[in-house]
Amino acid sequence: MRHFTILFFLATIVAVAWASSSNDINVEEVISQVVEIHRLRPQTGSAGYRVPQLDCLSWRLAVETNNFRDWKLVPSACENYVGHYMLGKQYRHDCEAVANAAIEYAKGLKLGGDGKDVWVFDIDETTLSNLPYYARSDVAFGAKAFNSTKFNAWVIEGKAPAIPAILGLYKVVLSLGIKPVIITGTPEFTRQARINNLKNAGYTSWLKLILKGENDSAKSVVYKSSKRTELVKAGYRIVGNTGDQWTDLIGENPGARTFKVPDPMYYIG
Amino acid sequence: MRHFTILFFLATIVAVAWASSSNDINVEEVISQVVEIHRLRPQTGSAGYRVPQLDCLSWRLAVETNNFRDWKLVPSACENYVGHYMLGKQYRHDCEAVANAAIEYAKGLKLGGDGKDVWVFDIDETTLSNLPYYARSDVAFGAKAFNSTKFNAWVIEGKAPAIPAILGLYKVVLSLGIKPVIITGTPEFTRQARINNLKNAGYTSWLKLILKGENDSAKSVVYKSSKRTELVKAGYRIVGNTGDQWTDLIGENPGARTFKVPDPMYYIG
Repeated sequence: MRHFTILFFLATIVAVAWASSSNDINVEEVISQVVEIHRLRPQTGSAGYRVPQLDCLSWRLAVETNNFRDWKLVPSACENYVGHYMLGKQYRHDCEAVANAAIEYAKGLKLGGDGKDVWVFDIDETTLSNLPYYARSDVAFGAKAFNSTKFNAWVIEGKAPAIPAILGLYKVVLSLGIKPVIITGTPEFTRQARINNLKNAGYTSWLKLILKGENDSAKSVVYKSSKRTELVKAGYRIVGNTGDQWTDLIGENPGARTFKVPDPMYYIG
Repeated sequence: MRHFTILFFLATIVAVAWASSSNDINVEEVISQVVEIHRLRPQTGSAGYRVPQLDCLSWRLAVETNNFRDWKLVPSACENYVGHYMLGKQYRHDCEAVANAAIEYAKGLKLGGDGKDVWVFDIDETTLSNLPYYARSDVAFGAKAFNSTKFNAWVIEGKAPAIPAILGLYKVVLSLGIKPVIITGTPEFTRQARINNLKNAGYTSWLKLILKGENDSAKSVVYKSSKRTELVKAGYRIVGNTGDQWTDLIGENPGARTFKVPDPMYYIG
Protein backbone atom coordinates (compact mmCIF):
# COMPACT_ATOMS: atom_id res chain seq x y z
CA MET A 1 0.00 0.00 0.00
CA ARG A 2 2.67 2.50 1.00
CA HIS A 3 4.87 1.54 -1.94
CA PHE A 4 1.89 2.20 -4.17
CA THR A 5 1.47 5.66 -2.67
CA ILE A 6 5.16 6.46 -3.03
CA LEU A 7 5.06 5.35 -6.67
CA PHE A 8 2.26 7.76 -7.50
CA PHE A 9 3.96 10.49 -5.49
CA LEU A 10 7.24 10.10 -7.40
CA ALA A 11 5.37 9.97 -10.70
CA THR A 12 3.68 13.22 -9.84
CA ILE A 13 6.95 14.90 -8.95
CA VAL A 14 8.31 13.92 -12.35
CA ALA A 15 5.19 15.15 -14.11
CA VAL A 16 5.08 18.42 -12.21
CA ALA A 17 8.78 19.05 -12.77
CA TRP A 18 8.25 18.43 -16.47
CA ALA A 19 5.31 20.83 -16.53
CA SER A 20 7.38 23.53 -14.84
CA SER A 21 10.14 23.29 -17.40
CA SER A 22 7.79 23.79 -20.33
CA ASN A 23 6.97 27.17 -21.81
CA ASP A 24 3.25 26.65 -21.35
CA ILE A 25 2.93 29.58 -18.95
CA ASN A 26 0.41 31.78 -20.69
CA VAL A 27 -2.35 30.02 -18.78
CA GLU A 28 -1.30 31.73 -15.60
CA GLU A 29 -3.11 34.96 -15.07
CA VAL A 30 -0.51 36.06 -12.57
CA ILE A 31 2.29 36.06 -15.11
CA SER A 32 2.06 39.83 -15.43
CA GLN A 33 3.13 40.03 -11.81
CA VAL A 34 6.35 38.18 -12.47
CA VAL A 35 8.81 40.98 -12.04
CA GLU A 36 12.46 41.57 -11.69
CA ILE A 37 12.89 40.25 -8.17
CA HIS A 38 11.47 36.88 -9.14
CA ARG A 39 13.83 36.18 -11.98
CA LEU A 40 16.19 34.01 -9.94
CA ARG A 41 15.57 30.26 -10.02
CA PRO A 42 12.03 30.86 -11.30
CA GLN A 43 11.35 27.17 -11.65
CA THR A 44 11.43 26.60 -7.90
CA GLY A 45 8.37 27.34 -5.84
CA SER A 46 6.47 28.55 -8.89
CA ALA A 47 5.70 25.02 -10.09
CA GLY A 48 3.26 24.60 -7.27
CA TYR A 49 4.77 21.45 -5.85
CA ARG A 50 4.81 20.83 -2.18
CA VAL A 51 7.85 21.56 -0.06
CA PRO A 52 7.80 18.85 2.56
CA GLN A 53 9.38 20.49 5.62
CA LEU A 54 6.21 21.48 7.40
CA ASP A 55 8.14 22.47 10.49
CA CYS A 56 9.68 25.27 8.39
CA LEU A 57 6.18 26.70 8.01
CA SER A 58 5.89 26.81 11.79
CA TRP A 59 9.33 28.35 12.03
CA ARG A 60 8.37 31.06 9.54
CA LEU A 61 5.06 31.79 11.29
CA ALA A 62 6.86 32.08 14.63
CA VAL A 63 9.35 34.49 13.04
CA GLU A 64 6.64 36.60 11.41
CA THR A 65 4.62 36.83 14.63
CA ASN A 66 7.68 37.85 16.70
CA ASN A 67 7.51 34.65 18.75
CA PHE A 68 11.07 33.75 17.73
CA ARG A 69 13.51 36.56 18.46
CA ASP A 70 17.23 37.15 18.26
CA TRP A 71 17.74 34.25 15.88
CA LYS A 72 21.02 34.29 13.99
CA LEU A 73 20.48 32.07 10.95
CA VAL A 74 17.74 30.46 8.94
CA PRO A 75 17.86 26.80 10.11
CA SER A 76 19.82 24.88 7.49
CA ALA A 77 16.89 22.45 7.14
CA CYS A 78 14.78 25.42 6.05
CA GLU A 79 17.17 26.96 3.51
CA ASN A 80 15.32 25.35 0.60
CA TYR A 81 11.93 26.14 2.07
CA VAL A 82 12.81 29.82 2.56
CA GLY A 83 14.31 29.97 -0.93
CA HIS A 84 11.20 28.46 -2.49
CA TYR A 85 9.01 30.82 -0.50
CA MET A 86 10.96 33.95 -1.37
CA LEU A 87 11.26 33.16 -5.07
CA GLY A 88 7.79 31.76 -5.54
CA LYS A 89 4.31 33.21 -5.64
CA GLN A 90 3.60 33.11 -1.94
CA TYR A 91 6.04 35.81 -0.86
CA ARG A 92 4.70 38.05 -3.63
CA HIS A 93 1.12 37.38 -2.55
CA ASP A 94 1.99 37.96 1.09
CA CYS A 95 3.60 41.32 0.23
CA GLU A 96 0.51 42.26 -1.77
CA ALA A 97 -1.77 41.40 1.14
CA VAL A 98 0.23 43.70 3.45
CA ALA A 99 0.31 46.50 0.88
CA ASN A 100 -3.41 46.19 0.15
CA ALA A 101 -4.26 46.39 3.85
CA ALA A 102 -2.03 49.44 4.21
CA ILE A 103 -3.53 51.12 1.13
CA GLU A 104 -7.07 50.53 2.40
CA TYR A 105 -6.09 51.99 5.77
CA ALA A 106 -4.30 54.98 4.21
CA LYS A 107 -7.24 55.81 1.95
CA GLY A 108 -9.56 55.82 4.97
CA LEU A 109 -7.43 58.28 6.97
CA LYS A 110 -8.62 61.74 7.87
CA LEU A 111 -5.48 63.70 7.16
CA GLY A 112 -4.41 67.01 8.66
CA GLY A 113 -3.73 68.66 5.31
CA ASP A 114 -0.95 70.67 6.94
CA GLY A 115 1.95 68.65 5.53
CA LYS A 116 2.61 67.02 8.90
CA ASP A 117 1.29 63.53 8.10
CA VAL A 118 4.16 61.15 7.46
CA TRP A 119 4.52 57.45 6.68
CA VAL A 120 7.67 55.66 7.79
CA PHE A 121 9.27 53.14 5.44
CA ASP A 122 12.22 50.88 6.09
CA ILE A 123 14.45 50.09 3.08
CA ASP A 124 15.80 46.53 3.04
CA GLU A 125 13.13 43.88 2.39
CA THR A 126 10.55 46.67 2.60
CA THR A 127 10.94 49.27 -0.15
CA LEU A 128 13.83 47.42 -1.81
CA SER A 129 14.50 43.70 -2.11
CA ASN A 130 17.90 42.13 -1.55
CA LEU A 131 16.80 38.82 -3.04
CA PRO A 132 19.46 38.91 -5.77
CA TYR A 133 22.01 39.02 -2.94
CA TYR A 134 20.25 36.57 -0.60
CA ALA A 135 19.82 34.01 -3.39
CA ARG A 136 23.58 33.77 -3.80
CA SER A 137 25.04 30.42 -2.79
CA ASP A 138 27.33 32.08 -0.23
CA VAL A 139 24.33 33.73 1.44
CA ALA A 140 21.80 30.88 1.04
CA PHE A 141 18.67 32.89 1.88
CA GLY A 142 20.04 33.65 5.30
CA ALA A 143 21.14 30.12 6.13
CA LYS A 144 24.78 31.22 6.05
CA ALA A 145 26.31 33.73 8.46
CA PHE A 146 25.78 37.40 7.68
CA ASN A 147 28.87 39.07 6.21
CA SER A 148 28.64 42.84 6.56
CA THR A 149 31.52 43.50 4.15
CA LYS A 150 29.87 41.51 1.37
CA PHE A 151 26.43 42.93 2.14
CA ASN A 152 27.67 46.52 2.14
CA ALA A 153 29.43 45.88 -1.18
CA TRP A 154 26.06 44.73 -2.59
CA VAL A 155 24.34 47.82 -1.14
CA ILE A 156 26.95 50.09 -2.72
CA GLU A 157 26.18 48.54 -6.12
CA GLY A 158 22.71 50.09 -5.74
CA LYS A 159 21.01 47.39 -7.80
CA ALA A 160 18.30 46.22 -5.39
CA PRO A 161 14.93 46.04 -7.15
CA ALA A 162 11.75 47.48 -5.66
CA ILE A 163 9.30 45.22 -3.91
CA PRO A 164 6.42 45.90 -6.31
CA ALA A 165 3.61 45.80 -3.74
CA ILE A 166 5.37 48.26 -1.44
CA LEU A 167 6.20 50.54 -4.37
CA GLY A 168 2.45 50.55 -5.03
CA LEU A 169 1.76 51.50 -1.41
CA TYR A 170 4.41 54.24 -1.61
CA LYS A 171 2.72 55.74 -4.67
CA VAL A 172 -0.66 55.76 -2.95
CA VAL A 173 0.88 57.35 0.16
CA LEU A 174 2.43 60.09 -2.01
CA SER A 175 -0.81 60.63 -3.94
CA LEU A 176 -2.70 61.15 -0.67
CA GLY A 177 -0.29 63.89 0.40
CA ILE A 178 1.30 61.81 3.14
CA LYS A 179 5.05 62.38 3.21
CA PRO A 180 7.34 59.36 3.15
CA VAL A 181 10.12 59.20 5.72
CA ILE A 182 12.64 56.48 4.99
CA ILE A 183 14.61 55.15 7.95
CA THR A 184 17.24 52.49 7.34
CA GLY A 185 19.77 50.71 9.48
CA THR A 186 22.36 50.76 6.70
CA PRO A 187 25.27 53.09 7.48
CA GLU A 188 25.54 56.73 6.47
CA PHE A 189 28.41 56.05 4.04
CA THR A 190 25.98 54.20 1.76
CA ARG A 191 23.76 57.30 1.38
CA GLN A 192 24.50 58.12 -2.25
CA ALA A 193 24.14 54.50 -3.35
CA ARG A 194 20.84 54.22 -1.52
CA ILE A 195 19.53 57.46 -3.06
CA ASN A 196 20.44 56.26 -6.54
CA ASN A 197 18.97 52.83 -5.88
CA LEU A 198 15.69 54.16 -4.45
CA LYS A 199 15.23 56.61 -7.34
CA ASN A 200 16.06 54.01 -9.99
CA ALA A 201 13.59 51.63 -8.39
CA GLY A 202 10.78 54.19 -8.55
CA TYR A 203 10.91 55.83 -5.11
CA THR A 204 11.24 59.33 -6.43
CA SER A 205 10.85 61.61 -3.42
CA TRP A 206 10.69 61.71 0.36
CA LEU A 207 10.60 64.12 3.26
CA LYS A 208 13.63 62.58 4.95
CA LEU A 209 16.03 59.75 4.26
CA ILE A 210 17.62 58.73 7.55
CA LEU A 211 20.64 56.41 7.62
CA LYS A 212 22.42 55.14 10.69
CA GLY A 213 25.19 57.46 11.86
CA GLU A 214 28.25 56.49 13.84
CA ASN A 215 26.72 57.86 17.04
CA ASP A 216 23.39 56.08 16.65
CA SER A 217 22.54 53.09 18.83
CA ALA A 218 23.62 49.71 17.51
CA LYS A 219 20.26 48.36 18.65
CA SER A 220 17.78 48.84 15.85
CA VAL A 221 14.75 49.31 18.08
CA VAL A 222 16.54 52.10 19.99
CA TYR A 223 17.90 53.76 16.84
CA LYS A 224 14.58 53.67 14.98
CA SER A 225 12.57 54.74 18.03
CA SER A 226 14.83 57.76 18.53
CA LYS A 227 14.47 58.86 14.91
CA ARG A 228 10.68 58.49 15.06
CA THR A 229 10.56 60.40 18.33
CA GLU A 230 12.52 63.25 16.67
CA LEU A 231 9.84 63.33 13.96
CA VAL A 232 7.04 63.50 16.53
CA LYS A 233 8.86 66.22 18.48
CA ALA A 234 9.15 68.19 15.23
CA GLY A 235 5.37 68.12 14.97
CA TYR A 236 4.94 65.29 12.48
CA ARG A 237 2.21 62.68 12.87
CA ILE A 238 3.32 59.15 11.97
CA VAL A 239 0.11 57.80 10.45
CA GLY A 240 1.67 54.57 9.20
CA ASN A 241 4.86 52.57 9.55
CA THR A 242 5.99 49.75 7.27
CA GLY A 243 8.92 47.43 7.90
CA ASP A 244 10.03 43.84 7.61
CA GLN A 245 11.46 43.67 11.15
CA TRP A 246 9.43 43.85 14.34
CA THR A 247 12.14 46.16 15.65
CA ASP A 248 10.98 48.63 12.96
CA LEU A 249 7.47 48.52 14.38
CA ILE A 250 7.76 48.47 18.18
CA GLY A 251 9.37 50.85 20.69
CA GLU A 252 8.52 54.53 21.04
CA ASN A 253 6.17 56.28 18.66
CA PRO A 254 5.67 53.29 16.35
CA GLY A 255 2.98 55.15 14.43
CA ALA A 256 -0.82 55.05 14.42
CA ARG A 257 -0.68 51.74 12.62
CA THR A 258 2.10 49.36 11.69
CA PHE A 259 2.42 46.93 8.78
CA LYS A 260 4.75 43.95 8.96
CA VAL A 261 6.24 42.98 5.59
CA PRO A 262 7.30 39.32 5.46
CA ASP A 263 10.98 38.46 5.87
CA PRO A 264 12.07 34.97 6.86
CA MET A 265 15.71 35.57 5.86
CA TYR A 266 17.16 37.54 8.76
CA TYR A 267 16.45 39.06 12.16
CA ILE A 268 17.65 42.49 13.24
CA GLY A 269 17.56 43.05 16.98
CA MET B 1 1.40 17.57 -21.60
CA ARG B 2 -0.96 19.27 -19.18
CA HIS B 3 -3.43 16.38 -19.37
CA PHE B 4 -0.58 14.10 -18.46
CA THR B 5 0.17 16.19 -15.38
CA ILE B 6 -3.47 16.24 -14.34
CA LEU B 7 -3.66 12.47 -14.71
CA PHE B 8 -0.77 11.95 -12.34
CA PHE B 9 -2.15 14.55 -9.98
CA LEU B 10 -5.54 12.84 -9.79
CA ALA B 11 -3.90 9.46 -9.38
CA THR B 12 -1.90 10.82 -6.47
CA ILE B 13 -4.99 12.24 -4.79
CA VAL B 14 -6.60 8.82 -5.02
CA ALA B 15 -3.51 7.11 -3.66
CA VAL B 16 -3.04 9.60 -0.84
CA ALA B 17 -6.73 9.46 0.11
CA TRP B 18 -6.47 5.68 0.19
CA ALA B 19 -3.39 5.89 2.39
CA SER B 20 -5.12 8.23 4.80
CA SER B 21 -8.13 5.97 5.16
CA SER B 22 -6.06 2.93 6.00
CA ASN B 23 -5.07 1.97 9.52
CA ASP B 24 -1.40 2.05 8.63
CA ILE B 25 -0.69 4.96 10.93
CA ASN B 26 1.94 3.55 13.24
CA VAL B 27 4.61 4.86 10.89
CA GLU B 28 3.92 8.40 11.95
CA GLU B 29 6.05 9.41 14.87
CA VAL B 30 3.67 12.25 15.64
CA ILE B 31 0.76 9.93 16.24
CA SER B 32 1.19 10.24 19.99
CA GLN B 33 0.38 13.89 19.63
CA VAL B 34 -2.96 13.23 18.00
CA VAL B 35 -5.24 14.27 20.78
CA GLU B 36 -8.80 15.10 21.50
CA ILE B 37 -9.02 18.39 19.61
CA HIS B 38 -8.01 16.74 16.35
CA ARG B 39 -10.69 14.10 16.30
CA LEU B 40 -13.05 16.05 14.03
CA ARG B 41 -12.78 15.37 10.31
CA PRO B 42 -9.30 13.90 10.82
CA GLN B 43 -9.03 12.93 7.18
CA THR B 44 -8.84 16.54 6.02
CA GLY B 45 -5.57 18.38 6.13
CA SER B 46 -3.82 15.39 7.66
CA ALA B 47 -3.57 13.57 4.34
CA GLY B 48 -0.92 15.99 3.20
CA TYR B 49 -2.63 17.09 0.03
CA ARG B 50 -2.45 20.61 -1.17
CA VAL B 51 -5.21 23.12 -0.49
CA PRO B 52 -5.22 25.32 -3.56
CA GLN B 53 -6.36 28.74 -2.29
CA LEU B 54 -2.95 30.29 -1.90
CA ASP B 55 -4.44 33.70 -1.20
CA CYS B 56 -5.88 32.24 2.00
CA LEU B 57 -2.30 31.69 3.15
CA SER B 58 -1.64 35.40 2.67
CA TRP B 59 -4.87 36.22 4.47
CA ARG B 60 -3.86 34.05 7.41
CA LEU B 61 -0.34 35.51 7.57
CA ALA B 62 -1.78 39.03 7.54
CA VAL B 63 -4.14 38.05 10.37
CA GLU B 64 -1.37 36.45 12.43
CA THR B 65 0.95 39.45 12.01
CA ASN B 66 -1.78 41.94 12.99
CA ASN B 67 -1.77 43.52 9.52
CA PHE B 68 -5.48 42.76 9.10
CA ARG B 69 -7.53 44.13 11.98
CA ASP B 70 -11.19 44.42 12.92
CA TRP B 71 -12.22 41.72 10.47
CA LYS B 72 -15.63 40.21 11.10
CA LEU B 73 -15.59 36.86 9.31
CA VAL B 74 -13.24 34.37 7.77
CA PRO B 75 -13.65 35.02 4.01
CA SER B 76 -16.04 32.38 2.68
CA ALA B 77 -13.43 31.39 0.08
CA CYS B 78 -11.13 30.51 2.96
CA GLU B 79 -13.57 28.47 5.08
CA ASN B 80 -12.18 25.19 3.76
CA TYR B 81 -8.61 26.40 4.02
CA VAL B 82 -9.03 27.47 7.64
CA GLY B 83 -10.83 24.20 8.44
CA HIS B 84 -8.04 22.15 6.89
CA TYR B 85 -5.45 24.19 8.72
CA MET B 86 -7.13 23.98 12.11
CA LEU B 87 -7.85 20.25 11.92
CA GLY B 88 -4.61 19.23 10.29
CA LYS B 89 -1.03 18.96 11.42
CA GLN B 90 0.01 22.50 10.70
CA TYR B 91 -2.01 24.20 13.43
CA ARG B 92 -0.69 21.63 15.92
CA HIS B 93 2.88 22.23 14.77
CA ASP B 94 2.41 25.99 14.88
CA CYS B 95 1.10 25.79 18.47
CA GLU B 96 4.05 23.60 19.41
CA ALA B 97 6.50 26.12 17.92
CA VAL B 98 4.98 28.91 20.02
CA ALA B 99 4.96 26.79 23.17
CA ASN B 100 8.55 25.63 22.63
CA ALA B 101 9.74 29.21 22.19
CA ALA B 102 7.90 30.22 25.36
CA ILE B 103 9.29 27.27 27.32
CA GLU B 104 12.83 28.06 26.22
CA TYR B 105 12.33 31.67 27.25
CA ALA B 106 10.73 30.74 30.60
CA LYS B 107 13.53 28.32 31.49
CA GLY B 108 16.09 31.04 30.82
CA LEU B 109 14.44 33.58 33.13
CA LYS B 110 16.06 34.83 36.31
CA LEU B 111 13.09 34.73 38.64
CA GLY B 112 12.52 36.75 41.78
CA GLY B 113 11.73 33.74 43.97
CA ASP B 114 9.34 35.94 45.95
CA GLY B 115 6.11 34.60 44.43
CA LYS B 116 5.60 37.74 42.40
CA ASP B 117 6.47 36.34 38.97
CA VAL B 118 3.31 35.68 36.97
CA TRP B 119 2.51 34.45 33.48
CA VAL B 120 -0.71 35.64 31.84
CA PHE B 121 -2.77 33.15 29.86
CA ASP B 122 -5.87 33.79 27.80
CA ILE B 123 -8.45 30.96 27.69
CA ASP B 124 -10.17 30.56 24.31
CA GLU B 125 -7.88 29.28 21.55
CA THR B 126 -4.99 29.60 24.03
CA THR B 127 -5.37 27.28 27.02
CA LEU B 128 -8.59 25.70 25.71
CA SER B 129 -9.68 24.96 22.15
CA ASN B 130 -13.16 25.68 20.83
CA LEU B 131 -12.55 23.63 17.72
CA PRO B 132 -15.46 21.23 18.44
CA TYR B 133 -17.69 24.31 18.36
CA TYR B 134 -15.99 26.07 15.44
CA ALA B 135 -16.07 22.93 13.31
CA ARG B 136 -19.89 22.90 13.45
CA SER B 137 -21.60 23.60 10.14
CA ASP B 138 -23.43 26.60 11.61
CA VAL B 139 -20.13 28.15 12.71
CA ALA B 140 -17.97 27.07 9.76
CA PHE B 141 -14.58 27.84 11.31
CA GLY B 142 -15.53 31.47 11.68
CA ALA B 143 -16.92 31.91 8.16
CA LYS B 144 -20.42 32.39 9.60
CA ALA B 145 -21.44 35.26 11.84
CA PHE B 146 -20.60 34.97 15.52
CA ASN B 147 -23.61 34.08 17.68
CA SER B 148 -22.94 34.91 21.32
CA THR B 149 -25.95 32.94 22.59
CA LYS B 150 -24.79 29.75 20.90
CA PHE B 151 -21.17 30.34 21.86
CA ASN B 152 -22.01 30.97 25.51
CA ALA B 153 -24.12 27.81 25.53
CA TRP B 154 -21.06 25.91 24.30
CA VAL B 155 -18.88 27.56 26.96
CA ILE B 156 -21.37 26.60 29.67
CA GLU B 157 -21.09 22.96 28.57
CA GLY B 158 -17.48 23.16 29.73
CA LYS B 159 -16.25 20.60 27.24
CA ALA B 160 -13.47 22.51 25.47
CA PRO B 161 -10.32 20.39 25.25
CA ALA B 162 -6.88 21.71 26.15
CA ILE B 163 -4.52 22.86 23.44
CA PRO B 164 -1.81 20.28 24.22
CA ALA B 165 1.19 22.49 23.47
CA ILE B 166 -0.07 25.28 25.71
CA LEU B 167 -0.92 22.81 28.47
CA GLY B 168 2.72 21.76 28.22
CA LEU B 169 3.84 25.38 28.56
CA TYR B 170 1.49 25.85 31.54
CA LYS B 171 3.03 22.85 33.31
CA VAL B 172 6.56 24.19 32.76
CA VAL B 173 5.49 27.63 34.01
CA LEU B 174 4.04 26.04 37.17
CA SER B 175 7.12 23.87 37.68
CA LEU B 176 9.36 26.95 37.55
CA GLY B 177 7.36 28.63 40.30
CA ILE B 178 5.82 31.22 37.99
CA LYS B 179 2.17 31.76 38.89
CA PRO B 180 -0.43 31.53 36.14
CA VAL B 181 -2.95 34.35 35.85
CA ILE B 182 -5.80 33.51 33.51
CA ILE B 183 -7.63 36.46 31.94
CA THR B 184 -10.56 35.78 29.66
CA GLY B 185 -13.08 37.93 27.84
CA THR B 186 -15.89 35.47 28.52
CA PRO B 187 -18.44 36.86 30.97
CA GLU B 188 -18.41 36.40 34.72
CA PHE B 189 -21.54 34.21 34.67
CA THR B 190 -19.54 31.46 32.95
CA ARG B 191 -17.06 31.27 35.87
CA GLN B 192 -18.06 27.89 37.29
CA ALA B 193 -18.18 26.28 33.85
CA ARG B 194 -14.75 27.69 33.02
CA ILE B 195 -13.27 26.48 36.30
CA ASN B 196 -14.64 22.98 35.71
CA ASN B 197 -13.48 22.99 32.13
CA LEU B 198 -9.97 24.23 32.91
CA LYS B 199 -9.52 21.69 35.70
CA ASN B 200 -10.86 18.80 33.60
CA ALA B 201 -8.50 19.81 30.79
CA GLY B 202 -5.47 19.70 33.08
CA TYR B 203 -5.10 23.31 34.21
CA THR B 204 -5.16 22.52 37.88
CA SER B 205 -4.27 25.76 39.64
CA TRP B 206 -3.76 29.49 39.17
CA LEU B 207 -3.14 32.64 41.11
CA LYS B 208 -6.15 34.42 39.63
CA LEU B 209 -8.89 33.62 37.15
CA ILE B 210 -10.27 36.88 35.81
CA LEU B 211 -13.50 36.96 33.79
CA LYS B 212 -15.11 40.00 32.26
CA GLY B 213 -17.50 41.77 34.63
CA GLU B 214 -20.43 43.91 33.63
CA ASN B 215 -18.49 47.09 34.39
CA ASP B 216 -15.41 46.09 32.39
CA SER B 217 -14.68 47.74 29.04
CA ALA B 218 -16.25 46.09 26.01
CA LYS B 219 -12.96 46.65 24.19
CA SER B 220 -10.71 43.69 24.86
CA VAL B 221 -7.45 45.64 24.71
CA VAL B 222 -8.75 48.10 27.34
CA TYR B 223 -10.20 45.37 29.56
CA LYS B 224 -7.12 43.17 29.45
CA SER B 225 -4.72 46.11 29.87
CA SER B 226 -6.59 47.26 32.98
CA LYS B 227 -6.44 43.81 34.55
CA ARG B 228 -2.73 43.50 33.82
CA THR B 229 -2.10 46.97 35.21
CA GLU B 230 -3.88 45.93 38.44
CA LEU B 231 -1.49 43.00 38.67
CA VAL B 232 1.55 45.23 38.20
CA LYS B 233 0.23 47.74 40.77
CA ALA B 234 -0.17 44.83 43.21
CA GLY B 235 3.55 44.16 42.84
CA TYR B 236 3.45 41.27 40.39
CA ARG B 237 5.91 41.01 37.51
CA ILE B 238 4.35 39.75 34.25
CA VAL B 239 7.24 37.73 32.87
CA GLY B 240 5.24 36.23 30.01
CA ASN B 241 1.90 36.64 28.27
CA THR B 242 0.28 34.13 25.95
CA GLY B 243 -2.81 34.74 23.83
CA ASP B 244 -4.32 34.08 20.44
CA GLN B 245 -5.43 37.68 19.88
CA TRP B 246 -3.10 40.63 19.40
CA THR B 247 -5.42 42.53 21.74
CA ASP B 248 -4.25 40.11 24.45
CA LEU B 249 -0.65 41.11 23.81
CA ILE B 250 -0.60 44.86 23.21
CA GLY B 251 -1.71 47.83 25.33
CA GLU B 252 -0.44 48.61 28.83
CA ASN B 253 1.84 46.25 30.71
CA PRO B 254 1.81 43.52 28.05
CA GLY B 255 4.50 41.60 29.92
CA ALA B 256 8.24 41.17 29.49
CA ARG B 257 7.59 38.95 26.50
CA THR B 258 4.49 38.00 24.55
CA PHE B 259 3.66 34.84 22.61
CA LYS B 260 1.05 34.86 19.86
CA VAL B 261 -0.83 31.57 19.55
CA PRO B 262 -2.30 31.04 16.05
CA ASP B 263 -5.98 31.73 15.50
CA PRO B 264 -7.34 32.34 12.00
CA MET B 265 -10.99 31.83 13.07
CA TYR B 266 -11.94 35.11 14.71
CA TYR B 267 -10.77 38.58 15.65
CA ILE B 268 -11.47 40.25 18.98
CA GLY B 269 -10.99 44.00 18.97
